[in-house]
Amino acid sequence: MAIQKLAAEDLAAALSGLAGWTLDREGRSLHKVFKFRDFQEAFAFMARIALLAERKNHHPDWSNRYGTVDVTLSTHDAGGVTSLDIALATAMDEFAARLA
Amino acid sequence: MAIQKLAAEDLAAALSGLAGWTLDREGRSLHKVFKFRDFQEAFAFMARIALLAERKNHHPDWSNRYGTVDVTLSTHDAGGVTSLDIALATAMDEFAARLA
Amino acid sequence: MAIQKLAAEDLAAALSGLAGWTLDREGRSLHKVFKFRDFQEAFAFMARIALLAERKNHHPDWSNRYGTVDVTLSTHDAGGVTSLDIALATAMDEFAARLA
Amino acid sequence: MAIQKLAAEDLAAALSGLAGWTLDREGRSLHKVFKFRDFQEAFAFMARIALLAERKNHHPDWSNRYGTVDVTLSTHDAGGVTSLDIALATAMDEFAARLA
Repeated sequence: MAIQKLAAEDLAAALSGLAGWTLDREGRSLHKVFKFRDFQEAFAFMARIALLAERKNHHPDWSNRYGTVDVTLSTHDAGGVTSLDIALATAMDEFAARLA
Repeated sequence: MAIQKLAAEDLAAALSGLAGWTLDREGRSLHKVFKFRDFQEAFAFMARIALLAERKNHHPDWSNRYGTVDVTLSTHDAGGVTSLDIALATAMDEFAARLA
Repeated sequence: MAIQKLAAEDLAAALSGLAGWTLDREGRSLHKVFKFRDFQEAFAFMARIALLAERKNHHPDWSNRYGTVDVTLSTHDAGGVTSLDIALATAMDEFAARLA
Repeated sequence: MAIQKLAAEDLAAALSGLAGWTLDREGRSLHKVFKFRDFQEAFAFMARIALLAERKNHHPDWSNRYGTVDVTLSTHDAGGVTSLDIALATAMDEFAARLA
């Protein structure tokens, strides 16, 4: 069975455990802006998360401008936010906290 | 003296030597979408260009979604497109062509 | 069942399809030196292969000095060379050929 | 004037401020083994340092095996250890400490 998008209450519960992530208006994707001290740090963050994404075969949409990384997470096949997105968001937060 | 943005005719000449790059409406930035076969290739492209950007201390604004890398180049200090952007665009095209 | 190391004849057949890879004296690992034009290219190669390694959960032993990447492949759990190593060697050759 | 290798007393002073770095027998290079929790972390470390190396145009010799990164620093043109190596060693320690 394919992965299912989270029910509203499960999504709310997951979001309450994450800092700085917002849901888009239609509730289909998570968004956060990460700020790093410079490009080297921002790209090291991206390299670490790229490896994790490849391991999980679940990839972020992201943009980068110098020390800023703007992330959107969604599970295309499920048409919304799934446990894969919550896991990736959690890993991003954990790694970014160590870089800070 | 700080780097100057290219005069209109120089910018036009530079663009005529680049394939697939477009100028934004106000003529202040260059834009191109690169397509790669998968995330691994897209990120290898970004890693190579990140190193070049760091060497030159001139960085792209870019976003990535799986195999796609969407690039915007501009020189903030000059308020427009400079020879730094043309050089970065040229290097991106050269590397992307080899990956293709 | 865990992955098994290749039988001698299968390993010989696999090696005959690979250019520049040598077997260590005890037949337990594959080795090749890749030369790139500079550090940027060498590291882009490593980034691409790192992502593949993470996807496959099978990692190279490698060293890097400027444009050179020295690779050793072996499957620890099998005590020798397996189809995982042949697949990684093949992918490395394919990507390096495009960078050349 | 080209960069000069550090005098013995300056090298000793620099080393006393670095933890875990050893000098090779001939006093020409610095060496340290970094241990990370997994490959993803080790490669994120390498990506961050690769960008710094490219910015400074001074590159490490390093090898990687899963979560381990084994580093040797020397300045070829000077035939020994210079302030460039001390700066790179210091930056590696600082970043590795944050990842830990």
